[in-house]
Amino acid sequence: MPTLLHHTLDPSSRLVRLMLAEYGVGIELVETAPWRREPEFLDVNPAATVPVMFDEPFPPIVGILATIAHIEANFGPEGPVESLLPENAGEKAETWRLLEWVLIKLGNEVTGYLLEEKLIKRAMRSGSPDPAVLRIAKANLGEHLAYFSWLLATRRWLAGDTMTLADFALAAHFSTLDYMGDIDWDKAGEAKDWYARIKSRPAFRTLLADRVVGMPASRTYTDLDF
Amino acid sequence: MPTLLHHTLDPSSRLVRLMLAEYGVGIELVETAPWRREPEFLDVNPAATVPVMFDEPFPPIVGILATIAHIEANFGPEGPVESLLPENAGEKAETWRLLEWVLIKLGNEVTGYLLEEKLIKRAMRSGSPDPAVLRIAKANLGEHLAYFSWLLATRRWLAGDTMTLADFALAAHFSTLDYMGDIDWDKAGEAKDWYARIKSRPAFRTLLADRVVGMPASRTYTDLDF
Repeated sequence: MPTLLHHTLDPSSRLVRLMLAEYGVGIELVETAPWRREPEFLDVNPAATVPVMFDEPFPPIVGILATIAHIEANFGPEGPVESLLPENAGEKAETWRLLEWVLIKLGNEVTGYLLEEKLIKRAMRSGSPDPAVLRIAKANLGEHLAYFSWLLATRRWLAGDTMTLADFALAAHFSTLDYMGDIDWDKAGEAKDWYARIKSRPAFRTLLADRVVGMPASRTYTDLDF
Repeated sequence: MPTLLHHTLDPSSRLVRLMLAEYGVGIELVETAPWRREPEFLDVNPAATVPVMFDEPFPPIVGILATIAHIEANFGPEGPVESLLPENAGEKAETWRLLEWVLIKLGNEVTGYLLEEKLIKRAMRSGSPDPAVLRIAKANLGEHLAYFSWLLATRRWLAGDTMTLADFALAAHFSTLDYMGDIDWDKAGEAKDWYARIKSRPAFRTLLADRVVGMPASRTYTDLDF
């Protein structure tokens, strides 16, 4: 069984876990705190990011893009499960566009800041969250929610009629933000209905059992009817 | 012929131009200034980033990840040219790892800052470059150069024995940084020899003819023997 070096609240690790669960692939999870930059971790990934997947006999698969490519090539869906990367050229391009949006834009403008201020500073004992940064990240989150709600007003799933990797990527970020209590669901519009739908999938169950010691999940985190 | 909406100094646009030139695919370039956030541009890409590729009959292909996937699927290499995404699983994972490093880490820590301070502020007439930001970006660049030189001390190309998309991605960023005069080649170690080699490729020629009005290229930019 492959092993995933991850952190519980890291959204890219969560995306990989969702993807593997959806494809029915078992994985052994090993938790790490990438921000500690421990030498043996930096030997594997000098960029000090997770996920890192170990899948013998392959060399370590480092980073979210490499892991997505590896899973698609080696653990493709079987039986009734559809691939999370559509065959159709238009839907495939839309999936990659939104994947990039989530991984880079949402990550840089929202999730990265909030994890740094709320989780990493606490874990590193390097001060309390900076209210100015939290305010900017929350304002940015409002704009992202508005965009995704606008998109989901005319589409069942993010990239179109079928669920794709873009849905799981956004759901992974939402789950991290929701754990920390950063999403005001009353203002989330269509994005709330979409998240309720994806949160009910069997693949989501493992995420909902996650806990970070000393940092309880928000009231809505496990609630499927939030 | 497909059309590429790009900006001359945008490293992701440059990566696409290099990739297409290497594969022998003609492209019509249309320059835009994404930071102006013009409504007709935001209609195509609300994230306000380039590249965007138009390739009838497909819908617009938005963003660097979608464009890479589209080119690999539709303009794969023919004849003697090798694919820039290796077949071998280990090399493929290494290519994606370094592609992620360049697009996200180097982009966030170095190139994005320097473009913002030197190009966008000037174009928007929104003040002069902030020396503190320039200093941080340059210090970060030093660390990236050290890492890539360390890697290239034991490898002919970034991801191993063959040239891949990771090489073109880093070369695209280097070319933007070099245009602005931000790379001290005397301190670039093995990365300098590697860049000299990739800069001499026919695919690189179009980039070297680029000019930004009012912002001359550095002395080393076109020099193949810098």
